[in-house]
Amino acid sequence: MLIDRLYLAAQEKGPVCVGLDTQLSFLPACILEKNETAGERIYEFNRLVIDATLDIASCYKIQIACYEALGLDGMRAYAASVRYARERGAVVIADVKRGDISSTATLYAKGHFTGDFEADFMTINAYMGEDAVSPYYPYMQEKGLFILVKTSNASSGDIQDLSVHGEPVYARMARLLEKWGRPYTGACGFSSLGAVVGLTYPEEIASLRALMPHTFCLVPGYGAQGGTAQDLAPLFKNGVCGVVNSSRALLTAHKGHTEEYDFSQHVRAATIAMRDEIRAIIR
Amino acid sequence: MLIDRLYLAAQEKGPVCVGLDTQLSFLPACILEKNETAGERIYEFNRLVIDATLDIASCYKIQIACYEALGLDGMRAYAASVRYARERGAVVIADVKRGDISSTATLYAKGHFTGDFEADFMTINAYMGEDAVSPYYPYMQEKGLFILVKTSNASSGDIQDLSVHGEPVYARMARLLEKWGRPYTGACGFSSLGAVVGLTYPEEIASLRALMPHTFCLVPGYGAQGGTAQDLAPLFKNGVCGVVNSSRALLTAHKGHTEEYDFSQHVRAATIAMRDEIRAIIR
Repeated sequence: MLIDRLYLAAQEKGPVCVGLDTQLSFLPACILEKNETAGERIYEFNRLVIDATLDIASCYKIQIACYEALGLDGMRAYAASVRYARERGAVVIADVKRGDISSTATLYAKGHFTGDFEADFMTINAYMGEDAVSPYYPYMQEKGLFILVKTSNASSGDIQDLSVHGEPVYARMARLLEKWGRPYTGACGFSSLGAVVGLTYPEEIASLRALMPHTFCLVPGYGAQGGTAQDLAPLFKNGVCGVVNSSRALLTAHKGHTEEYDFSQHVRAATIAMRDEIRAIIR
Repeated sequence: MLIDRLYLAAQEKGPVCVGLDTQLSFLPACILEKNETAGERIYEFNRLVIDATLDIASCYKIQIACYEALGLDGMRAYAASVRYARERGAVVIADVKRGDISSTATLYAKGHFTGDFEADFMTINAYMGEDAVSPYYPYMQEKGLFILVKTSNASSGDIQDLSVHGEPVYARMARLLEKWGRPYTGACGFSSLGAVVGLTYPEEIASLRALMPHTFCLVPGYGAQGGTAQDLAPLFKNGVCGVVNSSRALLTAHKGHTEEYDFSQHVRAATIAMRDEIRAIIR
């Protein structure tokens, strides 16, 4: 199962997920100044970042909003970037946060698990309940999901923290997800239905690990959003059981450096530093 | 404000929102058999449906999943369809149900309120709370949102019906939305932040109208999903205060008819019939 491949990659290469949430402002002058479309330049940047981090990143997360913002040109860059990373053997998480009724979810599954935009994992919003999730089940041998549980943003509590019979909504979501994922558990002990758990709420992380012992986590919020390796400790206390995403902090690591060296070597160095910070905590 | 334009269109043309959730299987043979890409054929179908319903539809909702499922070819058809409807003067709702942290929401706003995919309204999932919504506020004079409150699918209760201090989660969402929308209230008395309220739960609809007196509603679930004009009565009891979407039932109205007449005239007739059914209840 694909979840086993991701689990092994996280063990062997480290749990860093490189977020390709690429914006033009992140690009070094040597690419930015080219006479190409925004999408073409972003794709070139992504390609070089992937080449420089393939052996030290467990996976890549690609935030589709960055590409939708550039219209059709952006969508071409999105498709090309996902394809390139997968052709190089990497696991790719389409950070699309789709969520819709089952007939529509079936179409999203087709759109992001096959064809031009084919990725390995998708992020999903399950505010609509299980039938916004179940259309993806037929893919769960070769693909996987990460479902929003507790997000990293400041107002995530507006709905997620509401108290339902003594437990917050996000805890209910966590228990549902753990249950839904059970039939899709891999040899690694985790299911193909992972959870998105923001790093910015360390206390919640500790309680969630207990509620979802078989759920692999995608943890955003590291670096630019304020999360630290120490905050990960409760989630990772029994070894690697998730991947940790950083986007801006890694992709802009070359800023402020003279471009004597290839910019992507700064991205690589930042990725190694993040990996080692996290490994120091969880080992 | 745009909400005033939509309100007037719903008053004058009737509250039917034609859902361009177009799939290849919906197309009549005269288009399906053309030697064109799937996207090109779907765009041609959409164009003819728009031409045939422009004077009797308050607006068009376009479900982006149908287009994402076809990859880049589909996204070209999506962009062309949205552009065509807007060029003909129609209000277009991008049914994208995006929901993400504020930096990402800013990019989705750019993607769907400007450029190739520019629409008039977007549907939004606010499970992440207000900062998944606030990045759209700067657009609220000329654009609008419909935020998921109570959806029409069978398992919408998994999260939305959980009881929070005696009220369901969806009621809390409704009250938040009514509050968030207050600064963006138009001359019509409704705000630019509308709600998605599924027609398949009539009792909920009645309670929601009381919680959101200034919130215009987008009501899916009519026709193919089982909702009827009678179910709308509690929501529309003080006149038109929302638009009612039907997709499959309208777009496939030509099926089973000989194609002696233009297929789009069957779509038009079905749209008129739906409009009149609804008007009979709310007038």
